[in-house]
Amino acid sequence: MHARLLSAPSPVSTASSSSSLPSAGARPRRASWKPRGSASAPPLSLRARASMQAAAPLPQGQGGPPVHGVSNTVVGVLGGGQLGKMLCQAASQMGIKIVILDPLQDCPASSVCHEHVVGSFNDGDTVREFAKRCGVLTVEIEHVDAVTLEKLEKQGVDCEPKASTIMIIQDKYRQKNHFSKFGIPLPDFMEVDTLHSIEEAGERFGYPLMVKSKRLAYDGRGNAVAQNKEELSSVVASLGGFERGLYVERWAPFIKELSVIVARSRDGSTVCYPVVETIHKDNICHVVEAPADVSEKIKKSATGVAEKAIKSLEGAGVFAVELFLTENDQILLNEVAPRPHNSGHQTIESCYTSQYEQHLRAILGIPLGDPSMKTPAALMYNILGEDEGEAGFLLAHQLIGRALNIPGASVHWYAKPEMRKQRKMGHITIVGPSKMSVKSRLDKLLQSDTYDPKKASPRVSIIMGSDSDLDVMKDAEKILKKFNIPVETTIVSAHRTPERMYDFAKSAKDRGVEVIIAGAGGAAHLPGMVASLTSLPVIGVPIKTQSLLGLDSLLSIVQMPKGIPVATVAIGNAENAGLLAVRMLASRDPELYDRAIKYQDDLRDMVLEKAERLENIGWEEYLK
Amino acid sequence: MHARLLSAPSPVSTASSSSSLPSAGARPRRASWKPRGSASAPPLSLRARASMQAAAPLPQGQGGPPVHGVSNTVVGVLGGGQLGKMLCQAASQMGIKIVILDPLQDCPASSVCHEHVVGSFNDGDTVREFAKRCGVLTVEIEHVDAVTLEKLEKQGVDCEPKASTIMIIQDKYRQKNHFSKFGIPLPDFMEVDTLHSIEEAGERFGYPLMVKSKRLAYDGRGNAVAQNKEELSSVVASLGGFERGLYVERWAPFIKELSVIVARSRDGSTVCYPVVETIHKDNICHVVEAPADVSEKIKKSATGVAEKAIKSLEGAGVFAVELFLTENDQILLNEVAPRPHNSGHQTIESCYTSQYEQHLRAILGIPLGDPSMKTPAALMYNILGEDEGEAGFLLAHQLIGRALNIPGASVHWYAKPEMRKQRKMGHITIVGPSKMSVKSRLDKLLQSDTYDPKKASPRVSIIMGSDSDLDVMKDAEKILKKFNIPVETTIVSAHRTPERMYDFAKSAKDRGVEVIIAGAGGAAHLPGMVASLTSLPVIGVPIKTQSLLGLDSLLSIVQMPKGIPVATVAIGNAENAGLLAVRMLASRDPELYDRAIKYQDDLRDMVLEKAERLENIGWEEYLK
Repeated sequence: MHARLLSAPSPVSTASSSSSLPSAGARPRRASWKPRGSASAPPLSLRARASMQAAAPLPQGQGGPPVHGVSNTVVGVLGGGQLGKMLCQAASQMGIKIVILDPLQDCPASSVCHEHVVGSFNDGDTVREFAKRCGVLTVEIEHVDAVTLEKLEKQGVDCEPKASTIMIIQDKYRQKNHFSKFGIPLPDFMEVDTLHSIEEAGERFGYPLMVKSKRLAYDGRGNAVAQNKEELSSVVASLGGFERGLYVERWAPFIKELSVIVARSRDGSTVCYPVVETIHKDNICHVVEAPADVSEKIKKSATGVAEKAIKSLEGAGVFAVELFLTENDQILLNEVAPRPHNSGHQTIESCYTSQYEQHLRAILGIPLGDPSMKTPAALMYNILGEDEGEAGFLLAHQLIGRALNIPGASVHWYAKPEMRKQRKMGHITIVGPSKMSVKSRLDKLLQSDTYDPKKASPRVSIIMGSDSDLDVMKDAEKILKKFNIPVETTIVSAHRTPERMYDFAKSAKDRGVEVIIAGAGGAAHLPGMVASLTSLPVIGVPIKTQSLLGLDSLLSIVQMPKGIPVATVAIGNAENAGLLAVRMLASRDPELYDRAIKYQDDLRDMVLEKAERLENIGWEEYLK
Repeated sequence: MHARLLSAPSPVSTASSSSSLPSAGARPRRASWKPRGSASAPPLSLRARASMQAAAPLPQGQGGPPVHGVSNTVVGVLGGGQLGKMLCQAASQMGIKIVILDPLQDCPASSVCHEHVVGSFNDGDTVREFAKRCGVLTVEIEHVDAVTLEKLEKQGVDCEPKASTIMIIQDKYRQKNHFSKFGIPLPDFMEVDTLHSIEEAGERFGYPLMVKSKRLAYDGRGNAVAQNKEELSSVVASLGGFERGLYVERWAPFIKELSVIVARSRDGSTVCYPVVETIHKDNICHVVEAPADVSEKIKKSATGVAEKAIKSLEGAGVFAVELFLTENDQILLNEVAPRPHNSGHQTIESCYTSQYEQHLRAILGIPLGDPSMKTPAALMYNILGEDEGEAGFLLAHQLIGRALNIPGASVHWYAKPEMRKQRKMGHITIVGPSKMSVKSRLDKLLQSDTYDPKKASPRVSIIMGSDSDLDVMKDAEKILKKFNIPVETTIVSAHRTPERMYDFAKSAKDRGVEVIIAGAGGAAHLPGMVASLTSLPVIGVPIKTQSLLGLDSLLSIVQMPKGIPVATVAIGNAENAGLLAVRMLASRDPELYDRAIKYQDDLRDMVLEKAERLENIGWEEYLK
């Protein structure tokens, strides 16, 4: 039966199979295939090329022919959308062969896969035939025929992740039950199958009430919100009625939506990508911000929940865990995708190993790669259809035109043949040396001014023991603002507000602060105490006193015991404290470093101008 | 005639052409094409699909149908090797269609291009037919039929870069003459056509003497070195004799080989990638180090030469300029490639815009992207065939196996069907947060210990005015070594070695130093002077003096004028200076931050232990 399917020559057999065919130069390089019995199928003999050496998983380096490159195993992917396309791009780089099963002739992955089999990933016979061509089978969409996958697994086909996992994910109610059983925090939920039971749920969970289809729901489809009891029946009807299979969830009062991509290898070990924030509009992912602007504590908690959820499932691959962050810093699981995900697109440009390469590594049994970020900040912006047809293409092209002018922006265009409103047509990733830079670049892309640098997380925190120090300390803020560095300024007294000082110092790193500037006079304990409560660099500014002109402040700040350093500047010289903070931030930020150099050059030029003037006009005139 | 060629449906016509064909599901997705007259060509009607809407350059957004995605223009590439493959990968991401002309059915680019035309890029008829399929024509190899390109240009075909450029580059002697005319610094050279003339050249240039073929020379082929007059005739014979067309070059006594990738847009504007060092072995590129470990001055000079050379050529695209750096810091041009280049592979992972995307941007008239590095350091290692056939594949697979275990390493496998000794089969790029980290990762890859962390570029530089300060300053080095941070310690006196101080401060950033610790006593000018000559953060350690116990040192260091900050620590507390440097480096390095926290916790535990002991045994016992 294998011989009846189209197949590219396996890497081992290429040379010989090439010469055995009469018109080698004219053979189709990539062929489409329709399952047997299709009315329009052309005579198969015309397109058969070679037997299926590559179909079974080949031994990886022990016995058998040596592996060519990374892996000889042919990867079969159910689905050929943009996720499949980006999987193929990662595979192409590593020389790994991917075969795609997708019903659409022009699906995005078709242009870059090794082979595209045109057929339904929902049809048992098709999936079964397709599986014969692959050493390992995976998915880029979870709405596939999981029952067939389960049967194939029993026959020894290697499916990653496992059919059991796909089954749990496909049915959202089953998914909730599964994770609930494993102690994963979730919004309360219950099944509803009559008007009576949904009304009961409404009383129990309150309103607004989230009503969801159990199956085939994504990008907001299959979800609806009832604001009150009266809306219930119309909401149920909008979802296709109870016979569709519905359940309800208690409304999660989230303040942010987060996502964690978790990769699990064949041996069950996991690595997690940095937590990102996903910003949705009309239930469709709109922007992804990496890393998320939340505290280290919340990041740890989100990663913990995500990892625990994935460890409860079977099989290898990458998984996206979508989470809610509530007002009281609670993390609740929203849902899981058993595949690469929109919230991981930016990993292509911003992480050492992209989620796509990671998925291939995981399912092929290659060691997992480093998921950490190689650029400090990234933003992903989805190119969604804004109009139907050519009008939509025009708008998308205009957006892309702006993106191509923005440093650090990469354009991904999925080349979907048809444009529709709200359809994901491509995406733009912006990476850069800081959160601030990528946000202002996104603003440029969207021609908007939504990004307010005043509201950005401060990178430098300026504190002082008393408002009487403000007249000196304001110079630190002035200079940091000149360099466009987000800064906060406040009063924290070591002696009068010791608890506040403790909380401030302990939370600073978590809040994204990178340098602390502390001004204090007299028995100036603030800088040293703060330095003892954090491992961030602390810069101390001695404030001039009436009694000892600030020498007391200077000695209090600078003479710290071993182990607790404070970077001390001159008495009253908050400007230099600000500049020192700039130098600390600039050593990893070439753009900022250049500006620091320029600032220094300007100072020099100012002095040179004065020198020239003095030389030209003489001291008598100068001193007038 | 177009209709006789195979073509994919243009994006505009896809939907309709799909339904007009009877067996849409079974159509070949990507087809190979042989020029007319080929004996083995199958009946074309079987594979013809649609007329050539995509062949002519489509209007970009003004009039005509709107552009779908980035560009509707089909890019034709002469050559389908690894450079063509990586061009296609960049194009796939942006949804740009590339058609490849290459004689090899299984050439690397064939698996990822939009279409592969099987034919010779050296054959006029084939190139002419091929050009009809493309909106713009470019090359990934310079050994193409440039005469035909010139004729095509006259007929209005858009070739980038121009045929004139390819012609100059193809003939190395003509290339040398061209650049010499434009005042580009080159090793001396002259044409030789008789034994007499080459002996004359030997007398003029001395030995060793470099003898080169004018044409078809690459990766060391076509080059030979004569050590003395007696070797001349055998060297000439080894290159195929004078009738092959030879010239000689004065031996360039280079200490490093550098390369600069220059991108030129259609309007003639250029951007340059950071200067890299290329390390050759047996004349084949072996390792590329980015950025090159040379001074800013040399970088500027190399970039200047490269940019000037490219501005003398015609047409758009990326160009690689290979350079020699001589002992006396002179830059000489070696040769130019009019296309993406081996010395730019690492731009895929390490730069905001890869050389491949940049080439597409340049030839399509899209604004050039940001060529700067998004990761601080990168290394490229070529996977060269170490043996013929399967033995070679095995060795390559073992190397790849190690690479897959190294953080920050990306494996590129070109999937060439045949393995040969010294053939470029793939490459590995390693990126990371510092030069040190990528070099030690490369050592791990090569299972070698050539990399000595003691010889690593220091991240912190400890300097002092006199060796009498060493007893204090050693504590800074001790603490930094505890944190595994590469450090250098030396003597630099502001008053006794002012030139040395100037050179030290001006070069520190260039050498990879991120923080400077300067100890000084008495009229302690060193920290402040160094801070005025660099924009790196400078930490000052006041050294205790006999006369004023170090108060003089402290005040000299801390009381800096506005604009030039020094982070001052307690008198004699070099340990705190080291810890302050750790905190500065740690704010961007989570792993280091965790270790800094642990260090602080250990200090606390030590005090708590003492407290417990005091409480347990009482002060009388404790003080014994």
